[in-house]
Amino acid sequence: MDMKSLVLFNSLSGEKESFKPLIEGRIGLYVCGPTVYNDVHLGNCRTFVSFDTIFRYLIHLGYKVRYVRNITDVGHLLDDGEDRMMKGARLEQLQPMEIAQKYSNGFHQMMQVFNTLPPSIEPRATGHIIEQIEMVEAILERGFAYERNGSVYFDTIKFVEAKNPYGQLSGRIIEDLLSESRDNLKNQDEKKHPSDFALWIKASDEHIMRWNSPWSVGFPGWLLECSALSTKYLGEHFDIHGGGLDLIFPHHENELAQSTCYHGKPFVNYWLHNGYLVVNGEKMSKSLGNFFTVRQILEKYPGEAIRYAFLNTHYRQPLDWTDKGIQSAKQSLDRLYKLLEIRLS
Amino acid sequence: MDMKSLVLFNSLSGEKESFKPLIEGRIGLYVCGPTVYNDVHLGNCRTFVSFDTIFRYLIHLGYKVRYVRNITDVGHLLDDGEDRMMKGARLEQLQPMEIAQKYSNGFHQMMQVFNTLPPSIEPRATGHIIEQIEMVEAILERGFAYERNGSVYFDTIKFVEAKNPYGQLSGRIIEDLLSESRDNLKNQDEKKHPSDFALWIKASDEHIMRWNSPWSVGFPGWLLECSALSTKYLGEHFDIHGGGLDLIFPHHENELAQSTCYHGKPFVNYWLHNGYLVVNGEKMSKSLGNFFTVRQILEKYPGEAIRYAFLNTHYRQPLDWTDKGIQSAKQSLDRLYKLLEIRLS
Repeated sequence: MDMKSLVLFNSLSGEKESFKPLIEGRIGLYVCGPTVYNDVHLGNCRTFVSFDTIFRYLIHLGYKVRYVRNITDVGHLLDDGEDRMMKGARLEQLQPMEIAQKYSNGFHQMMQVFNTLPPSIEPRATGHIIEQIEMVEAILERGFAYERNGSVYFDTIKFVEAKNPYGQLSGRIIEDLLSESRDNLKNQDEKKHPSDFALWIKASDEHIMRWNSPWSVGFPGWLLECSALSTKYLGEHFDIHGGGLDLIFPHHENELAQSTCYHGKPFVNYWLHNGYLVVNGEKMSKSLGNFFTVRQILEKYPGEAIRYAFLNTHYRQPLDWTDKGIQSAKQSLDRLYKLLEIRLS
Repeated sequence: MDMKSLVLFNSLSGEKESFKPLIEGRIGLYVCGPTVYNDVHLGNCRTFVSFDTIFRYLIHLGYKVRYVRNITDVGHLLDDGEDRMMKGARLEQLQPMEIAQKYSNGFHQMMQVFNTLPPSIEPRATGHIIEQIEMVEAILERGFAYERNGSVYFDTIKFVEAKNPYGQLSGRIIEDLLSESRDNLKNQDEKKHPSDFALWIKASDEHIMRWNSPWSVGFPGWLLECSALSTKYLGEHFDIHGGGLDLIFPHHENELAQSTCYHGKPFVNYWLHNGYLVVNGEKMSKSLGNFFTVRQILEKYPGEAIRYAFLNTHYRQPLDWTDKGIQSAKQSLDRLYKLLEIRLS
């Protein structure tokens, strides 16, 4: 296989493009990892299996790949009032990192079950607070952010006024965002514009995870870590950024905006997004009664069969998870092993 | 088994003591984890199996245990001149975290082979630079440290003059330390006294891992992380601190000194140290020709038999690793399984 023959669908252009690395023979690949405050669900697993396959394929083509996948462990766990009042000693307090560790271990076990290769670097968000603070400082200095009561917000209007294309990835138009916002409602009034988003958030009394910063004792905005981590380990401008389709907006759109403002260079050359997973044509949800955990499926099918079922659908397409689909994947796999056995005997 | 009946040998007093937790029913346990810049050796594995057994026993007694074991990933890897000169892009540079990730994964695999329980929290040193900087600031403020050319040193003489007992753990006498020092020789002249040790080190050009601090772009001294991590996750004063016997001096002695200066409280109630591992009565070393890796033993014996061999010797005693010892451990284990089979059938 010739390295030159790789064609990727790039969410940035909305088109298939010939892949060309920034440095010959090397690829920097960043994929948004799990949030470790609960079990990964089947859709997450599909995403990680997809990018594992892409990672393996790039290596197969002869590239030297540095694959960075983060662990989001900045938890938004709140201390309930009782805990705060009743318990004095550190050892008696809820420790978010204990929860993060538990689900992080669970995630790694799951990735082993699906036989994914470990990424080259798996940085934790809480392990890079300094880098995130320094990024906020730089964006403030360049005039693309403002501080309000100890929190810092990215100024989307300034960004657009400076002739930066906002909405490149998601196709969203800034005017349409006037009435939209995913941020915490109580911070709403601090923002100049609803599409602005938090880079640093002042911690309220209930927030357990908190660090000193030039603006307040607080924590980084949830979009910031991927900009800081990819810059630190892959450089300001790198080749491929992947993630689930649900991350295009606001996560990746805002990540692109803040990274561009941070270093004033192009950020990522190829954006790859993995399609949704639905169950019998419907979104998996507890209210629809079609909710199940990955462990429940693993009781009936081996991880390898589930991986096979994932890969039966192109990664960009929505995957409809059905009993028939996983059964047929299991059968195909059994057939393959039987053929292999005949061939080897 | 009654919780009260636990007796531990405490390196601090040099005596066996009845164990009494700081908070009824709870235990804070800190164990020095691996440095992830090479494979763990058999002696390290013994230490982690010993403390896993202690962890399990404490849980068995009914305690709720928060077990913290760090990952030392502040590498002292140097960029060779060629790398620095030739390679411009981030992606082409040596990335210490890639190496740390590789050996960290290898360590976790090894811990699975020996069937150790994961600790409650496994914090990385590089993930807590802010906490370490804040600790240095506090020690400076209390007058027990001084800055020299961007590096910060702990002032052992000030510590002793303030009537603090230095040498409590190791039995070292401060005067005897005049001619000793494990620190980098080139920093020697910056120290007031040879027993002083670095809390923060200014990075030379070759140092790849570096962070901004109030004193210099540098990195924390290698003794600092355990003080910062145990304080963060277990509190300033906690129950049990464990590690290999080789860590008593200078690591634990200095950790005790700096922690005491940081918060002015007692630090740890019980210090537990795991004995050395020797091979046929001699220290394992490449020059003696008795060097082997854990993977080499695992080719011949299952992890469970090695664990059994470790536990055949009391954790505080030196363990003499011999072919006979591991063979007999394997046989004992086989006999146990045979008996179990007979009993179950």
